Amino acid sequence: MRESRVARLTTIGEQGVPHAVPVCFIYQHGFFYSPIDRKPKSVVPEKLARLRNIAARPQGALLIDHYEEDWTKLWFVLIRGKATQIPSSGRRERTAAMRALKKKYPQYAAGMLADDAPLLRIVPWRVSYWQSF
Amino acid sequence: MRESRVARLTTIGEQGVPHAVPVCFIYQHGFFYSPIDRKPKSVVPEKLARLRNIAARPQGALLIDHYEEDWTKLWFVLIRGKATQIPSSGRRERTAAMRALKKKYPQYAAGMLADDAPLLRIVPWRVSYWQSF
Repeated sequence: MRESRVARLTTIGEQGVPHAVPVCFIYQHGFFYSPIDRKPKSVVPEKLARLRNIAARPQGALLIDHYEEDWTKLWFVLIRGKATQIPSSGRRERTAAMRALKKKYPQYAAGMLADDAPLLRIVPWRVSYWQSF
Repeated sequence: MRESRVARLTTIGEQGVPHAVPVCFIYQHGFFYSPIDRKPKSVVPEKLARLRNIAARPQGALLIDHYEEDWTKLWFVLIRGKATQIPSSGRRERTAAMRALKKKYPQYAAGMLADDAPLLRIVPWRVSYWQSF
């Protein structure tokens, strides 16, 4: 699960409308972290739906799954929990997460992650696991 | 997009908690369809979160995306819309969707889809497209 390259992050927008987006992530010390990286964005970070949504409603679902044509090998993990942006005061946590992100994704080590990138933390409060066998 | 093998379906549960699950789907005549198939389920269909959720709140988000390590080739489509279960009276629509599902997924033609499988329809009311280039 922690080796998966992409997860899907769901947040809740205005009027309870769900929003979902593929994200890069790491799992560390029981928490999940996902950065706002340098992949092109249509809006400035402050206006990104996921950040606006968790600011108003700090709830998120992270779906990590595996698909292949042999359906006996499918699995998914659904992590639901508190989603917040790490405050700039959280330096130790931030430094550790940024280091792990750059280790997992060579793209981040190569410049796709700004030093001051907004960083989301998801604290799981409910985890569902499914596998097909 | 319509050739993607898997999408992620988000619905809204009790107390507004998001739920997400990987799903098989087809796109046909402007609508998206996703069945409750014969992959193992931990509960009977009536108790599946996605069906309970849309019965109480007919809203869904379907995320279709492409990941690869070359980040200049990423894309995703986020479809938000009305999600409902096709009533058993909708025979023509149902027959056409079931046929298309079996054509797209050989696993369905080989028996992984019951003739009376519950079938979800998502009528898009908002579509967001993103690509990295």
